[in-house]
Amino acid sequence: MSLPLLLDHLRKTAALGQVAGLISWDQETMMPEKGAAQRAEQTGVMAGLIHQQSTDPKIPEWIAAIDENEISDFNKVNIREAKRDYEQTTKVPESLAKTIAKASAEGQMIWAKAREAGDFQMFAPVLEKLVELKREEAKCLSDNQQDLYDTLLDQFEPGAKTATLLPLLEGLRNPLVALREQIADKLKPKPFEGNFSSSQQLAMAEKLAKQMGYDFKAGRIDISTHPFSSGGGGDSRITTRVDEKNPLNCLYSTAHEVGHALYAQGAPDPFLPAAQYCSMGVHESQSRFWENQIARSRPFAEWLYPQMKAHFPELNIASAQEYYQAVNSVETGFIRTEADEVHYNLHVLLRFELERDLVSGNLEVKDLEGEWNKRFKQYFGLEVTDVKLGVLQDVHWSVGLFGYFPTYSLGNIYSACLDKAMRSDMPERDAKIAKGETTEVLDWLREKIHRKGKLLSAENLIQSATGESPSAQPLIEYLEDKYSDLYNL
Amino acid sequence: MSLPLLLDHLRKTAALGQVAGLISWDQETMMPEKGAAQRAEQTGVMAGLIHQQSTDPKIPEWIAAIDENEISDFNKVNIREAKRDYEQTTKVPESLAKTIAKASAEGQMIWAKAREAGDFQMFAPVLEKLVELKREEAKCLSDNQQDLYDTLLDQFEPGAKTATLLPLLEGLRNPLVALREQIADKLKPKPFEGNFSSSQQLAMAEKLAKQMGYDFKAGRIDISTHPFSSGGGGDSRITTRVDEKNPLNCLYSTAHEVGHALYAQGAPDPFLPAAQYCSMGVHESQSRFWENQIARSRPFAEWLYPQMKAHFPELNIASAQEYYQAVNSVETGFIRTEADEVHYNLHVLLRFELERDLVSGNLEVKDLEGEWNKRFKQYFGLEVTDVKLGVLQDVHWSVGLFGYFPTYSLGNIYSACLDKAMRSDMPERDAKIAKGETTEVLDWLREKIHRKGKLLSAENLIQSATGESPSAQPLIEYLEDKYSDLYNL
Repeated sequence: MSLPLLLDHLRKTAALGQVAGLISWDQETMMPEKGAAQRAEQTGVMAGLIHQQSTDPKIPEWIAAIDENEISDFNKVNIREAKRDYEQTTKVPESLAKTIAKASAEGQMIWAKAREAGDFQMFAPVLEKLVELKREEAKCLSDNQQDLYDTLLDQFEPGAKTATLLPLLEGLRNPLVALREQIADKLKPKPFEGNFSSSQQLAMAEKLAKQMGYDFKAGRIDISTHPFSSGGGGDSRITTRVDEKNPLNCLYSTAHEVGHALYAQGAPDPFLPAAQYCSMGVHESQSRFWENQIARSRPFAEWLYPQMKAHFPELNIASAQEYYQAVNSVETGFIRTEADEVHYNLHVLLRFELERDLVSGNLEVKDLEGEWNKRFKQYFGLEVTDVKLGVLQDVHWSVGLFGYFPTYSLGNIYSACLDKAMRSDMPERDAKIAKGETTEVLDWLREKIHRKGKLLSAENLIQSATGESPSAQPLIEYLEDKYSDLYNL
Repeated sequence: MSLPLLLDHLRKTAALGQVAGLISWDQETMMPEKGAAQRAEQTGVMAGLIHQQSTDPKIPEWIAAIDENEISDFNKVNIREAKRDYEQTTKVPESLAKTIAKASAEGQMIWAKAREAGDFQMFAPVLEKLVELKREEAKCLSDNQQDLYDTLLDQFEPGAKTATLLPLLEGLRNPLVALREQIADKLKPKPFEGNFSSSQQLAMAEKLAKQMGYDFKAGRIDISTHPFSSGGGGDSRITTRVDEKNPLNCLYSTAHEVGHALYAQGAPDPFLPAAQYCSMGVHESQSRFWENQIARSRPFAEWLYPQMKAHFPELNIASAQEYYQAVNSVETGFIRTEADEVHYNLHVLLRFELERDLVSGNLEVKDLEGEWNKRFKQYFGLEVTDVKLGVLQDVHWSVGLFGYFPTYSLGNIYSACLDKAMRSDMPERDAKIAKGETTEVLDWLREKIHRKGKLLSAENLIQSATGESPSAQPLIEYLEDKYSDLYNL
């Protein structure tokens, strides 16, 4: 009887999580502004209930009463995840969890003000507090057995360790810097000109999403300040953003979020933990795969360009080739979220190094801005003169997210691994993609990734999908091939 | 310490209720269709949590420990409501509550099918079960001390009793039948012609809502199959519907729902029970007041007609007077929700009589269709030949709502009482309304009704606002005056 009770409890926790996700989606897309104070209270109440559900003392009792020899692999994973969630939630004293939640809310507020004012020192005290609190949290979680940064990382990328990530991520640095130096600013992208109406951009985004296999009966697209995906199963929504001067932002944000949402729509069960996404890195691999390996590929540009022309007759781009170049221009810039494929991982590396040093104590918050600027100059060759374009550009640290950044690069690494394997499984892929046919691509991902849920670790999942251990090599090769061709290197 | 703990608990319960309301709003307006199964599970989990909150055994303990002499009137009402809610929830055994919830879901499904098939006998068995279950529920709630119908009525109109409602509601019958016979079908309304686009209708609905004082920073308007209002305080949303052949449906549904939403936006606190709406009847008085006494009035037609012309240049109505006639045409028909002001309460009376007899056992479900048709012929002079236009037209009974219908007529009675008092307080009202100025109308309602929350019973609230006990007389006079003038009686 213990297993059904546990599973029922887990489904209930997940349903509450979905409700919390929905009211957060609503807040970003639909909520009238005066609803904010009530929404904050509702959100707090939901968080409290979810915490209560996750720390129910019956959970370990049920688990202890289950004979693991008599259950399916799927349910073994449900139990493993229930145990993991229970331990992660109970090991951190409620008072500390509340202090962190409060400091994160405060941190985000002060970060926004400091960013506005362009003053890092305004932000430093609360960041210092957050680093200290997250170290404390990591100590609770690791029982002092494990590296503190690894403990934080594990919350987003279960089982990942700095020792295995370092060679993957650091291995990117030299080849990327070399590639950057070969090509940067060689090809000036043709600036987009014209006025691209919000409704036309949304129509084009819907067309693109449909083409990628996004099921609108199990989702919807709305506008928000920052694009995101939310929900899961039969209700996997995305948002996009619109810049009326440039339709690419909307288009590739949509491709990215649809990549996430396809993973969510492909979950084998909407509630049970074993059926949910494997890790943040794998989630990001799905969004980056659709955004870069598909939507920014030459064959897809052949399909996409005429569609773009049909939606935006005023588009000042003359051919699919020109369009392909325009959406793959390489420019050294300060902002991670605007970075091209060559620069993106260098931005992540910088943050990965700095946050490890912050958590280990090797770097003090007061020195963070200087250290950022120094290393930025090393990797990008640019002098940071505006802190808004420097250390204050990302929200993550202000809300206590340490150990999150490397999952972005893992996503890029994994997506290139998947791309390589898929190409070898599907020699005709390019020809099909040039006609906008992506069904087999999605089927491949469904079978190899989406339907596997959390059954395997991220590393084993990629290994099982590709036949090789994940490495940075496919990403480096993919980038070198793509940009050699584009820039005639 | 007991009072703050109790209030905190009540706020939390209310916040959960708001979340449940929001996911229900989302279901009707935004949810993709494949989200239905997950949403049902989420809704069930939320209902369970709210039930748990409402039956927390600490509630009576806290209440017992509070010295009522030391607290404000506002908090006395919070305690009264907490007690009421606790008792209503705990007196009904959980198994019965679940059986009723299940039978209601089933009832609605079978009702929809029976309606589609035009077959009352298909619906009769589940209705019989529902009547029996609601009688059982009423027995639990009343401790066998009270009339069963009154007990059900009390859930929607606290403190109301058949003995006081009967003279109010039955008093309407003869004057309304007389009025109906004098005027019915005398003035054929000019049929609206043209195609009225959904977006233009929504634009006009927004214009109207704004004019009525609806705060869009604390609400929003969307489209749904059946219009409704939801939420409260800083997030009071409404929906409307669109018939592209006739813009009036959208317009007056909007006026109606905005009336509800203004009440919700005017609540002195978004969470505490003492600050919430007084009763369903009073809630309906607000929607009907704005829909009928304001939006269907001659002076408002003078403001509204040019706006309509501007939004719908093809409108085949030549003047404000013609418009005023068109939106007040009296026609005998079968459907309550489409009924004009003269017929509406006759529809309600019919249901009020029949549901009392069902609950008391004086009428058996198997005889309901025949009895409906017999009485309909008496009151309306029409033969019911299609059960879809007869006893199967309303969803209420199929979901176990017995005792709800009379609150519609109470709403009409109260709104006329308020109208009479307001006119006497504001001799200039018509002149202002003719210019679209409704600020003082809203201020009056805010002061006399909205800000009072649940401090007074419905009867005392109307008495305090108008200086007179609620009676049907103002409604009869209002209708006789309006239609004598319109029809030159």
